[in-house]
Order: sequence, then structure tokens, then C-alpha cells
Amino acid sequence: MASSSSSSSSYPLKDELDIVIPTIRNLDFLEMWRPFFQPYHLIIVQDGDPSKTIKVPDGFDYKLYNRNDINKILGPKASCISFKDSACRCFGYMVSKKKYIFTIDDDCFVAKDPTGKDIDALRQHIRNLLHPATPYFFNTLYDPFSDGADFVRGYPFSLREGVPTAVSHGLWLNIPDYDAPTQLVKPRERNTRYVDAVMTLPKGILFPMCGMNLAFDRDLIGPAMYFGLMGDGQPIGRYDDMWAGWCVKVICDHLGLGIKTGLPYIWHSKASNPFVNLKKEYKGIFWQEEIIPFFQDAILPKECTTVQACYIELSKQVKDKLGKIDPYFVKLGDAMVTWIEAWNELNPPAKAANGK
Amino acid sequence: MASSSSSSSSYPLKDELDIVIPTIRNLDFLEMWRPFFQPYHLIIVQDGDPSKTIKVPDGFDYKLYNRNDINKILGPKASCISFKDSACRCFGYMVSKKKYIFTIDDDCFVAKDPTGKDIDALRQHIRNLLHPATPYFFNTLYDPFSDGADFVRGYPFSLREGVPTAVSHGLWLNIPDYDAPTQLVKPRERNTRYVDAVMTLPKGILFPMCGMNLAFDRDLIGPAMYFGLMGDGQPIGRYDDMWAGWCVKVICDHLGLGIKTGLPYIWHSKASNPFVNLKKEYKGIFWQEEIIPFFQDAILPKECTTVQACYIELSKQVKDKLGKIDPYFVKLGDAMVTWIEAWNELNPPAKAANGK
Repeated sequence: MASSSSSSSSYPLKDELDIVIPTIRNLDFLEMWRPFFQPYHLIIVQDGDPSKTIKVPDGFDYKLYNRNDINKILGPKASCISFKDSACRCFGYMVSKKKYIFTIDDDCFVAKDPTGKDIDALRQHIRNLLHPATPYFFNTLYDPFSDGADFVRGYPFSLREGVPTAVSHGLWLNIPDYDAPTQLVKPRERNTRYVDAVMTLPKGILFPMCGMNLAFDRDLIGPAMYFGLMGDGQPIGRYDDMWAGWCVKVICDHLGLGIKTGLPYIWHSKASNPFVNLKKEYKGIFWQEEIIPFFQDAILPKECTTVQACYIELSKQVKDKLGKIDPYFVKLGDAMVTWIEAWNELNPPAKAANGK
Repeated sequence: MASSSSSSSSYPLKDELDIVIPTIRNLDFLEMWRPFFQPYHLIIVQDGDPSKTIKVPDGFDYKLYNRNDINKILGPKASCISFKDSACRCFGYMVSKKKYIFTIDDDCFVAKDPTGKDIDALRQHIRNLLHPATPYFFNTLYDPFSDGADFVRGYPFSLREGVPTAVSHGLWLNIPDYDAPTQLVKPRERNTRYVDAVMTLPKGILFPMCGMNLAFDRDLIGPAMYFGLMGDGQPIGRYDDMWAGWCVKVICDHLGLGIKTGLPYIWHSKASNPFVNLKKEYKGIFWQEEIIPFFQDAILPKECTTVQACYIELSKQVKDKLGKIDPYFVKLGDAMVTWIEAWNELNPPAKAANGK
């Protein structure tokens, strides 16, 4: 393991991390996660009908927010939080007061490593976040901060200090995160390949960020973790995490922050319905062909030195350049601004500065 | 596995691949590789004293070139081929008439996969080279052309065709490829992590290319695989493969070609002497801090549409911009031109075009 000042930080950061779970059903899946999640506070964001009762297994410390709560807390600004879509989870990021967030879907279970041992996904995410990222040069032995690894010959010494890690993107065994067309074509494909690696996503390259198994440093990148307008009343779904990933990557590249992908794995139990997915994704499949070049070319001015400033600037570019594709993007650009306003209201600058 | 037109190509391409081995000793290591290498032609580049006899195990089809042969074949242009350094291996790339090259060090043995099975490194390299690369967007499940894998949700459909793969960079179990300072600090570190992944190096990011276990498509990138001036009479060593890697990456990015890294592993048996290595690397450790930004910023003009044209242009930029660091780079820039002249002499354009 390459030397890293943060390697001495202690796990499991009990008082510094919230687990955010969006759901429409009873959270039986938590039973399997009990040994790992019970020490932490859960923020449950109930999607859909707020009159429905969500059962949470005994012994967990949690707070549940339904649509009525969101409306009450945010007032008119609640319009930026999606309804009838797991994108609503980002409300949980906003109300958290912790430095770190781990978010997981309620159809994700504990995976096993190749030796048959249960994987403590949270522990690996924390490890990823506490060690530096290296986005400016590729290390062929992957994460130099892993046990038994280091920077290889030819890795510039000036770049070995790395940059702070803002995001840890975990993967999924069993049901892979495929789009509807791939699901339709390969209904039986399962991911059985355990790739024992964590790597930093290089600067300047975009990636498809999945919200199923994701952790991040709220202080470093929280205000950019907006999951957009999806679901009820919107022309698109299943692009919530993708949207956040594109914005987050552009902002991390600009601010000199790192994003890691790879370990930890969770066990994704059930494929969602590909026909329903196709309906949700349909426009996104076309739009992403223009959205991705937009993000690839997006340049943020030097004056943007905070995540909020970067995000507001990006919202302007979204309205200006993507608004031509569909009026939806003008609405989305406005919602991005509302999101930042709401974030700042719940997280006043002084408090945010404290957290850093 | 994502659909790929080249997936139907048959292994093992017996008549289309040469194995290039630089050495100063008897090639006993070939015994272990016999089941895998025997069907192929070997090009052995004997380094150092040409009067010494190199023993090659019976049954291999090979041609051996010593320094006298190199001088005879290249005449005055032999000055571009390093002496007393494994960089001399690139002579083998030049005299080959095959489409593919696999090069391996003579202290590298057959590794075992996690199930205990011998790894056919060559087969994996060929697989890597025959399937497209995807340098413009990161696929979080790694190589979409692996069995049981594909492009994940959010991967733009327009980019799924990929680009031709020019280079396959394999890794090493046991002794990792560390620089002298890391070797000195961690004398007992061994690489035991088998990472079951192949990935495309994203566009715009450099990597430390190691020549120990490397394959490439000679038709696509051969003229850029020059291992520079190292060893006897030169102020630097152990940067031969790094130099080639930087040049190759910049040219692949410019020409729309891909480079993959990851599988296959070989078993690297013996660490080289860190004190000797430090002496060789000493200047490189300083110089790379300026060389890497140079390559990161290098722009090739649109008019450069062949590898040769790109390489000649790069040689000019090397002399112009790196010449300020040390007169060595002026000499190296000249040697880059000599290399291309020698390459073109041995590989007349008509013939090269045939190969494509």
C-alpha cells in the first residue's frame, strides 16, 4: 500500500455517515445487512403514496421521510425532488448532517467474495473514500492504496500524493445494471465475475454512475449529487443516477477531486421489468447521444471554486445548450437551481464550512 | 459479451504472430512455455557480446539476431538500436513480417489463474487484440467483450462499436514492476492479486507501459513501438518501454486506436537489483516530471494520418521541447527519425499496406 496520510483514519465512522435508502415497500432486506448497517443512522425516503406504512426491522436507528414530509420541509422547493422514482433519494442527501453518505437500493443484498465470506460493502466504501484518488495518470496495478499494491515503475512521483476522493462507486454481482435493450436481448445474463480491484476514473472521461451501491463525501461533492427530475410527470426515467454522474464527474475534474469505481460488490437480486424500463429510458437513449458530448465538452470557468458555483454554472449551460433538444432540459436546469437553493437553506454555508 | 464482428476470428493465428524475446542468456525459460509458444515463430534478439552462444531448447522455430546481425542488416542506421539494454528488442519488431507481435522477458514464467490452471497468456493477448477497444467512455463492468459482460446502462449506443485495438498490455504476478525507490522501500512486496479484468485505457490519459508482457498489432502501431536509446553510452535505462508507451498512447489517441490493459498475467520470477536500477533510473525520475506533461499536452496535426507521420512529428516536438532538459533528447529525437527510416526500409510501404 502506498503511503497515505488518511490511512490511519479509523473505521467505521459511526457518527460521520448516513445510509440513504429510497423505497416503496417494507425494508425486510435490512435483516441481511444488520451486522453491517445497525451501527449507522438510516435515512429512509419513502416514495409514492405517503399514507402507506413502511415497516423497518427492529433495532435500526432511522428517520423516514415521505412525500408529505418533503413538501413540509422544502415548501415550494419540493418541486425539485422527483416523485414515483427512486431519484427521490437525493432528498436524503440534503437532510443528512453527516460528512459521508452511503446509498443502496432495497433489492440489493450482501454479496460473497470468492472465498465465500460476506462482503462488508460499507467498510470498502469508507476505505475508498478515506484514501486518495489518482485521476491524472493510470496505475496499471489499479489502486496503489490497496494492500500489497503500489504505484508502478514510471508513475510520476509528483502525482503520487493524489487528490481527495469524493465518490466511491460500487458494483453488482448477479443482475448487472443493463439498459432495457440489453436486458431484452440478454434476459439470462448474470454477472459472476468478481474483479478484485478499485480504480480511479481518469480525468476527462465520463462514466455511467449507478445509484444502486454508491458512497460519497457530502462535504466535498454533496450539492452536485442531484438525481434530477424523473418519474411522475417527467418524460424520462432511469437516468437519475446517470445525470448525477455526468454532473459530478465534470465538477470533480474541475475542482481536482477523485472518483473511484470497482469494489465493493453487492448482490443485486432482481432484474427490473425490461418493458417498463424501455418506456422510461426511451427518450434517454436518444438524448444521451447529445447529452454526453455536451458534458464531454463542458468547461467550467476558473471562478467556480465551490460545488454550488460549479453546479449553478452547469445549470445555465444545460438550459442554454440542452434546452434545444427538448423543453424538459430547461425545466431540469431550473430544478438544478432550486436544488442548490434548497441545499443551501438546509445546509447554511457556515455549517457546511465547519464540516470541511 | 457484446457483439463484435471480430469475435469470430480464430485463434491462435499461427502464421500471423511472432514472439520477440530479448536476452543475454540461454533460453531455458522456454521449456515452461512450450505448450503455448511452440506453434509460433520466435525472434530472439541477443543483447551484449555477440560471440556468446545462446542455447534455445529443441523444437522451437526461431531466428536469432545478435549485434553483428543488427549492424549488418541496418548499417549505419543500427545506431538507433540500443546495446546492452533490453530496449534492443524493438529490432525484432522491425524485422518481423507478421501482423501481431508478442514480446516477453526471459524471467517471466507461466502464471496460474485462481483455479490453479496455467494461463495461456498469448491466447488472452490475441483475444484482447481481436476485439474492439472503447477509449471514449468508461464501462464500469470493464471489457464489454468479455464472456458474461456487456455495456452497462448509460453507455452511449453510438460508442459501442468501439475502435480497433492496437496494444494489449499484460500484467505480472509475484514480482511487481516497481521503480528502484519503491523496490528499496518494499523489498518483500509481491503481487498476489489476480484482477480478472481487461480494460481500455481512456483517451487522453497516459499509462506506464511495461515491456515484460506486451502484445500489439504491428500493422496498426508497429512504427511507434520504438524503445528508444537506453543502456550502453546513454545517460538513462529502464525507460525504454515507458518511452514507447507514452509515444504509442499519444499516437493511438490521435489515430482513434485503442490500448487495453489487465489480463493476461505472467509470473515474474525475479526482482532486478534495485541499486543497479536506481543508477539506471536516476535521471529518468527527474526527467519524467517534465516528459509526462510534454506528452499530456502533445497535439498532433490533422495531416498526420499514418503512424510514421505521427512519429516523425513527435520526434520534432521531442527535440524542440525536451531538448531543453538535456542534449540526450536531441539525440533521441534524431534516433526516432532513424528508426522510422530503418522501419520503412525493412517494411516498404506497399508491403505494409498489404498487411492491413
